[in-house]
Amino acid sequence: MRILIVGAAGMLGRKLAGRLAKDGALGSAPISQLSLVDVVPADPPSVVLDISEPGAAEEALATRPDVIFHLAAVVSGEAEADLDKGYRVNLDGTRRLLDAVRGLGDGYRPRVVFSSSIAVFGPPFPEAIEDDRETAPLTSYGTQKAIGELLLSDYSRRGLLDGVAIRLPTICVRPGPPNLAASGFFSNIIREPLSGREAVLPVSEDVRHWFASPRSAVEFLVHAATLDTDALGDRRSLTMPGLSATVAEQIAGLREAGGEEAVRLIRREPDPTIARIVDGWPRNFDTRRARELGFRAETSFDEIIRIYLEDDAVR
Amino acid sequence: MRILIVGAAGMLGRKLAGRLAKDGALGSAPISQLSLVDVVPADPPSVVLDISEPGAAEEALATRPDVIFHLAAVVSGEAEADLDKGYRVNLDGTRRLLDAVRGLGDGYRPRVVFSSSIAVFGPPFPEAIEDDRETAPLTSYGTQKAIGELLLSDYSRRGLLDGVAIRLPTICVRPGPPNLAASGFFSNIIREPLSGREAVLPVSEDVRHWFASPRSAVEFLVHAATLDTDALGDRRSLTMPGLSATVAEQIAGLREAGGEEAVRLIRREPDPTIARIVDGWPRNFDTRRARELGFRAETSFDEIIRIYLEDDAVR
Repeated sequence: MRILIVGAAGMLGRKLAGRLAKDGALGSAPISQLSLVDVVPADPPSVVLDISEPGAAEEALATRPDVIFHLAAVVSGEAEADLDKGYRVNLDGTRRLLDAVRGLGDGYRPRVVFSSSIAVFGPPFPEAIEDDRETAPLTSYGTQKAIGELLLSDYSRRGLLDGVAIRLPTICVRPGPPNLAASGFFSNIIREPLSGREAVLPVSEDVRHWFASPRSAVEFLVHAATLDTDALGDRRSLTMPGLSATVAEQIAGLREAGGEEAVRLIRREPDPTIARIVDGWPRNFDTRRARELGFRAETSFDEIIRIYLEDDAVR
Repeated sequence: MRILIVGAAGMLGRKLAGRLAKDGALGSAPISQLSLVDVVPADPPSVVLDISEPGAAEEALATRPDVIFHLAAVVSGEAEADLDKGYRVNLDGTRRLLDAVRGLGDGYRPRVVFSSSIAVFGPPFPEAIEDDRETAPLTSYGTQKAIGELLLSDYSRRGLLDGVAIRLPTICVRPGPPNLAASGFFSNIIREPLSGREAVLPVSEDVRHWFASPRSAVEFLVHAATLDTDALGDRRSLTMPGLSATVAEQIAGLREAGGEEAVRLIRREPDPTIARIVDGWPRNFDTRRARELGFRAETSFDEIIRIYLEDDAVR
């Protein structure tokens, strides 16, 4: 089993590479080769390639991987700030990768797991977003992910590859330093206080959002790479399970794990801009298809915090 | 008011150009210039350009049209048979056109009316497809139209243009000689018998489908070019109203218009391939958004036949 991870230097890519290296297998198949590709050097060592450049995807596929994890993307904020870069990387890069797979021909039909996002959905939202809900993104990033899903489904239907697109919840608790993403505070208000540092909460406590841990996200990727795609038919996009939780529930979990002194490190600084952005994000889903296919996520925020403490917390 | 029609040599393009030339106005705005572009020469005279070629879209926009009708597309059967051509024309061509609009800059923000299709939907279908239904196309053509919709919405949201995508029903009765489209029989079984010629019916009479006349389709385009897009918000794709009718209802309409002798010219030749394709097509919609915005279609098949006789029938 030869495996390629495109976007291996990102948080998920590194965790997935580590998991696969540790297991030495994907499902029941031993891994003979694990190739890592990113636009920046990754640790463990990887090939530095930008698949949105002509010829780069072909180079990445030189080993004819049996499974390709396509995680490479310009993130939401950057895709919004730089329209050209977002479309080049997130749309053209994805298309070049799929066309490179197709170009190999000769019966080559790898499993392609594409990390999509709940950003493909836009308001007005129902109580819980169901599997047959339209994709009406409110960002260029969400638009590009929705287009990637359509391409993956069409190429799969035509037998050119065997694709699965998984729409990831907001990953929480993200390890590492706070980033500038509008969603960053959901992780910051847990991670920072647990390390004795202040964190800013820019929205009110009744804000509800859709979460899964990094450990679940890696498990989603592995499961998407090994499941029987006959069950998917021509609908290759799956909304991943997650936990619908309010900021108040997050804070209750923090209190449980770190006590009142941790909670006191949350500084409330209402930010109308962030509040408005967050207002356009999905809050809850009914992910029946994915659950029937065996995908599982956390069922409480306490569990998400426990996983952070086990896997990532630096104390 | 300057108007550009891309894809002006097609059936709809010609009818739209004729309508606008006759009216001399779009809504209440007098037309100062009507530019026609297609990959083949049109009648009335047009500019021959392939907007999927670099630089061609910029050339088409030289007049800085206030309204752009983007009707150019490789049709369903051809996009399925020739993957590269379908993506080049239907995806790259659309993207080049939108990027050319964006490239003009300087506050240029034309209305762009994009002819999409009910082919963006795929089975399993509910009793009636509602406005928030996911796009899960079963053809490359439908995929490319769904991608065009996403691009149009994103560029509109970013203020780069003012787009409206209209998902057209199957146009019936199509004038002209029978074509090879799998949907061709829906028109053939009306048009040919009314001219004393035989037509083949490859499916059973209980097949239900979604129709509008060419006259309605032109009216949809004109209305989409003139409506107040504030009412659309960020959801720029609209499923057009239509008539849900069975083949039996079509035949009843033919009997009314042409008598039993016309009906006898329908030759039943069941074709399992066509039956299977048609089985994957939508049958009925609840097009509330479009109706609330003032779009209207026929309410009986008799009306569709009457319009054919008034507008197109050659006898």
